[in-house]
Amino acid sequence: MKLHGYFRSSAAFRVRIALNLKGIRYEDAFHHLRKGEHLKPEYAALNPQKLLPTLQLDDGALLTQSLAIMEYLEETHPNPPLLPKNPVDRARVRALAMIPACEIHPLQNLRVLKHVRETYGQDEAGSFAWARHWNEVGLQAYEDMLTWTAGTGRYSHGDTPTLADTCLVPQVIGAKRFSVDLSRYPTLMKIFEACMKLEAFDKAQPSKQADFEP
Amino acid sequence: MKLHGYFRSSAAFRVRIALNLKGIRYEDAFHHLRKGEHLKPEYAALNPQKLLPTLQLDDGALLTQSLAIMEYLEETHPNPPLLPKNPVDRARVRALAMIPACEIHPLQNLRVLKHVRETYGQDEAGSFAWARHWNEVGLQAYEDMLTWTAGTGRYSHGDTPTLADTCLVPQVIGAKRFSVDLSRYPTLMKIFEACMKLEAFDKAQPSKQADFEP
Repeated sequence: MKLHGYFRSSAAFRVRIALNLKGIRYEDAFHHLRKGEHLKPEYAALNPQKLLPTLQLDDGALLTQSLAIMEYLEETHPNPPLLPKNPVDRARVRALAMIPACEIHPLQNLRVLKHVRETYGQDEAGSFAWARHWNEVGLQAYEDMLTWTAGTGRYSHGDTPTLADTCLVPQVIGAKRFSVDLSRYPTLMKIFEACMKLEAFDKAQPSKQADFEP
Repeated sequence: MKLHGYFRSSAAFRVRIALNLKGIRYEDAFHHLRKGEHLKPEYAALNPQKLLPTLQLDDGALLTQSLAIMEYLEETHPNPPLLPKNPVDRARVRALAMIPACEIHPLQNLRVLKHVRETYGQDEAGSFAWARHWNEVGLQAYEDMLTWTAGTGRYSHGDTPTLADTCLVPQVIGAKRFSVDLSRYPTLMKIFEACMKLEAFDKAQPSKQADFEP
């Protein structure tokens, strides 16, 4: 299979982690977000939403939206599992995953920051302040979920990585770009550090991708 | 089970539809979003994210994030199914569902519109323009997914309602509030109309909830 992504795309990063955790070999296709390569008709033909990533299967099928792709991987490559067995636990993992995926990242991706700058006359610092705000709101919610509800272990849920961790780690790395004070979220950061010790997370990070630019 | 919601909460509306489609009886608990009742400690104890909805199970377990709740309902009450059987089809349904759930709604919910008004000195019309923009971007993507990829039927995927429709319908009703020109999305609107003919969708709509305010 081929993963259409970009080194800095937080959503592509999630899928890279899931592929690595499951030991699935894949080919990379990079689309330069800042140069707008994802907006070209060639990419729109793969993904009508013109967002990264897209997972292209060997038979040509095209999967979009990182969480939908990871659920597909879980269904077709169940080992090692990235969701627990019990339905209530699965709901907790998915709810955690959706904090970055629904409540943080969509509010601070490239197109939203551009819109904030162009619509409200903000400079880069202004748009970063916007991004920082939503990272802080969302990461605090994640921290509270970890500390207020049962199930947290070495990772976000139990002692093996789950879909929650595949979403958390890229968000933490993204938050650093916006100068978020991560010391406010000690539980979450401990889990982040534990994840980054795993090769599956480490080799998925932006700085280790072939299209990385400092 | 008890659904903690609010008549106008788009995410609670999704869960109401899923509960109705599956014929699950539930009790309502309403939290007035505009009065900030969801921010009080009583509600935060149920849902650390302080967002609606929360599904409280009979044993007291608390489920958050509408998509995670609906996946739980699908796993524990599999009939009628709201996801197709084939993993690629399931990925398509989930990707469609995530257009409203990840790319539209989180950008235009109450707290974001408030932040736009307070941070960038916008009035209500200004914040509605922001909301309209992201509704247009997302609904166009949904329309393109429906017309560019195979699988669309009487509903978003095939001829029975799925999780995609439970997310689409509340978003269309929400878009009307922001004066989005819905005639631009003919495929999606045909599906919306088909859904609204079903009792499960009709009785879940905001105007038919006990806490409705015109």
